[in-house]
Amino acid sequence: MEFTVSQIAALLNGTVEGDGSQKVNRLDKIQEGKAGGVSFLSNMKYESHLYNTEATAVIVGEDFSPSKPLSTSLIKVKDPYSGFTQLLEAYAQLTKHSKTGVEEPSYMDQSTKMDDGGYRGVFSHIGKNCRIGKQVIIHAQAYIGDNVKIGDRCIIHSGAKIYNDTAIGNDCEIHPNVVIGADGFGFAPQEDKSYKNIPQLGNVILEDNVSVGSNSTIDCATMGSTIIKKGVKIDNLVQIAHNVIIGEHTVIAAQSGISGSTEIGKNCVIAGQVGIIGHLKIADNTTVGAKTGVSKSILQSGKIIFGYMGFEMKEFLKSYSIFKNLPSLQDRVKELEKKQ
Amino acid sequence: MEFTVSQIAALLNGTVEGDGSQKVNRLDKIQEGKAGGVSFLSNMKYESHLYNTEATAVIVGEDFSPSKPLSTSLIKVKDPYSGFTQLLEAYAQLTKHSKTGVEEPSYMDQSTKMDDGGYRGVFSHIGKNCRIGKQVIIHAQAYIGDNVKIGDRCIIHSGAKIYNDTAIGNDCEIHPNVVIGADGFGFAPQEDKSYKNIPQLGNVILEDNVSVGSNSTIDCATMGSTIIKKGVKIDNLVQIAHNVIIGEHTVIAAQSGISGSTEIGKNCVIAGQVGIIGHLKIADNTTVGAKTGVSKSILQSGKIIFGYMGFEMKEFLKSYSIFKNLPSLQDRVKELEKKQ
Amino acid sequence: MEFTVSQIAALLNGTVEGDGSQKVNRLDKIQEGKAGGVSFLSNMKYESHLYNTEATAVIVGEDFSPSKPLSTSLIKVKDPYSGFTQLLEAYAQLTKHSKTGVEEPSYMDQSTKMDDGGYRGVFSHIGKNCRIGKQVIIHAQAYIGDNVKIGDRCIIHSGAKIYNDTAIGNDCEIHPNVVIGADGFGFAPQEDKSYKNIPQLGNVILEDNVSVGSNSTIDCATMGSTIIKKGVKIDNLVQIAHNVIIGEHTVIAAQSGISGSTEIGKNCVIAGQVGIIGHLKIADNTTVGAKTGVSKSILQSGKIIFGYMGFEMKEFLKSYSIFKNLPSLQDRVKELEKKQ
Repeated sequence: MEFTVSQIAALLNGTVEGDGSQKVNRLDKIQEGKAGGVSFLSNMKYESHLYNTEATAVIVGEDFSPSKPLSTSLIKVKDPYSGFTQLLEAYAQLTKHSKTGVEEPSYMDQSTKMDDGGYRGVFSHIGKNCRIGKQVIIHAQAYIGDNVKIGDRCIIHSGAKIYNDTAIGNDCEIHPNVVIGADGFGFAPQEDKSYKNIPQLGNVILEDNVSVGSNSTIDCATMGSTIIKKGVKIDNLVQIAHNVIIGEHTVIAAQSGISGSTEIGKNCVIAGQVGIIGHLKIADNTTVGAKTGVSKSILQSGKIIFGYMGFEMKEFLKSYSIFKNLPSLQDRVKELEKKQ
Repeated sequence: MEFTVSQIAALLNGTVEGDGSQKVNRLDKIQEGKAGGVSFLSNMKYESHLYNTEATAVIVGEDFSPSKPLSTSLIKVKDPYSGFTQLLEAYAQLTKHSKTGVEEPSYMDQSTKMDDGGYRGVFSHIGKNCRIGKQVIIHAQAYIGDNVKIGDRCIIHSGAKIYNDTAIGNDCEIHPNVVIGADGFGFAPQEDKSYKNIPQLGNVILEDNVSVGSNSTIDCATMGSTIIKKGVKIDNLVQIAHNVIIGEHTVIAAQSGISGSTEIGKNCVIAGQVGIIGHLKIADNTTVGAKTGVSKSILQSGKIIFGYMGFEMKEFLKSYSIFKNLPSLQDRVKELEKKQ
Repeated sequence: MEFTVSQIAALLNGTVEGDGSQKVNRLDKIQEGKAGGVSFLSNMKYESHLYNTEATAVIVGEDFSPSKPLSTSLIKVKDPYSGFTQLLEAYAQLTKHSKTGVEEPSYMDQSTKMDDGGYRGVFSHIGKNCRIGKQVIIHAQAYIGDNVKIGDRCIIHSGAKIYNDTAIGNDCEIHPNVVIGADGFGFAPQEDKSYKNIPQLGNVILEDNVSVGSNSTIDCATMGSTIIKKGVKIDNLVQIAHNVIIGEHTVIAAQSGISGSTEIGKNCVIAGQVGIIGHLKIADNTTVGAKTGVSKSILQSGKIIFGYMGFEMKEFLKSYSIFKNLPSLQDRVKELEKKQ
């Protein structure tokens, strides 16, 4: 898809300085701008790139005036960053939701109902008694089991597996090879030291606007529901165990794991490779630093936790800086002992 | 499926106190009990929920007598917890193994033999010269390569990939998107600092009653076999490298990784996010705490290991509690230095 | 496939001592050798196995003479280890690239071109405007989106998902259930504490000879490209975030994660379960020990980094050995305090 620089400016309520008739078909970072690309300059730290970029046009603030000659056209707008984001979204809109209809062979049980405007890719599977909303995109090779509810405008990517009884709200995106609703890890130890499977009969509920990253796993509850509340964003390779509850607008970065029955509050930020043991409560607005192990409930809102067995980040960093110098502390103790 | 409260009581060899004719069709936690549900009360800590629950019936011990009026029926049995587990199992039995027959299109090479009573889902693939036992459930989009053996009553979930030469015993469950038998990470460094692929010619053996959680990976051996012994339970997103051996009835929680050629004994408990380096031996009955790094063999049975570079858990916790107070220890040393 | 011991010796430019007419069809470790197998003895530490092995033939050095009687034939070659590796490769060649042609049903958009000598497995998907080189193996249930380029002799395993605009060089191997080119984790916080999706418009570039292990994920760039340079070897369950660059011939072991926009140099070794935060630069020839957290750029080439918040490995180990004895250090301080 190609646009002129003037068309882009009109879209953004901006004005052109330079040649508005040139054509663009791509969004670039300013330091990597090439002919045919539109970039933006918001942080003046990067101003020097403006004078070297090969991008056809650069979006700048309406008050900006260049201090050197330049070979690119300028599109002047009120807020260059949100102007650019607006373009990104328009571009994504044009390229992402473009698939509709049904590709064959694909499988949908006749008891299932899917509303209009959606897409079912080739080799996808939808089981019995599902209820799929409108404009839902189900990519090739996705699997949806029985009794699954999916709201409007959801995207289920290739290879994602949504098991029986899962309920997904509106505007959710489930990335490739995610597994939702498979059995949790529940085994009862027997007298002979073997383990017996505890049937996992619950389900998973995802509220609206939830995103789950590639190859992540969310187990069904033993009974009741594993619940991911609205607006939660989960990165790749994350493990959410049975009966976990994640509060609204909490984000969880890659490779973190939340053990069974733990409840995480809303607006929390869980960084990457964090582990949280089971049956804890984590208060709203908690931040957990990367690689932290959380072994106790966090009851007060707004804490920042960090460390191998995490505690207040500031305190951990103090201890860790002494840890780095433990040999010298030990030497000082030796010195004192000698002097006695 | 609906049952009366009396039918449930009969199934459990129990007696009804209250209305045995009411119908139930679901198992609930007592604190979430709703009409139509059966709950149980085993731990008296939760007794208060009994007087508020909306569950139609609650399973209790035969000696229990309520201390307040209640609106639910009681089913009195010898052991309420195992009674409830029995119900869970009966329920799971009714809902899980219900699929039989072959859905089309699916692929099975004509040289492969699959016994009676099983199921092959749509878009599943089974390669050459496989030997599949009876009552095996192969879900939609599962992949089974060439020369694979699968015992009786196994369940291979959607998207699981079982590569060539894998041998799986009876009663195993392989969850969605698991990869078994793909190449291990074997590369020989060359003089120009590039790496050359070392062919991985071995296989993976899973003995009876093994369970592998969603998105876990078990690599084939370079030569010989990677062996997962009977009764081993592996959680989600776990990595088992080439030539590893896991002993009988050992459990491994989510996101742990076992490096190449390590042998883990029987009846071990490996918690989540543990890493064990290659070529070690871990004795029987070892417990490894969450997030532990294991860098040395553990030769004595029954140890509990914990820590970043793990050692005896008790010792680690002592050291860690002083680590948390290192700034004060450092201050005490300063104080002593001043006083000299 | 069966060969005589003499045929194997001829292939390796070696000589037979013993019965050259016996048939072999398998490669075995010497301690697990069985009739019909060929083993090798390179490290004399394992010499004792030679006198017990049931292998039909064992490859040894040309200067080797046994010190005891043996029941196996010997194949004498210049370098037994590389002779054996040569056999491994020949064997792998015979067994691996054997598939050609197209299995149906499979899906390839008519705008896509795939060169000769390749294979497309059943239930695989290839989207629009792709360009697939010669002798490319695309296994059953693999997914290739739109505008994807794949070079010659690549292997895309079952269940791997290669999303739109990905560019893959020659001789790459993408293992089962890998996800390449799905959206990165980019969300802009809004005033109401919700998050808005930042469209991810870039792609992923894999240069020649890259290997990606099962269930790993490589996210597309927000803009521009996530780049995996030639010869990089990535193990299972690894996370590579958007806009990361990995230098030539760097290896990354299982379950490690590299956060957004970090650049790793060439010839680095990243062990398992490592986490590297975003926007860092890691110099060439850096070694990062298992489970290390890297929170700062590493600017000098050739460092070995280790630890929870990693620093020079030698220093970390010194500090950690004192950490293990912190209770005794604390006691010594107590003792000093008492004596004052």
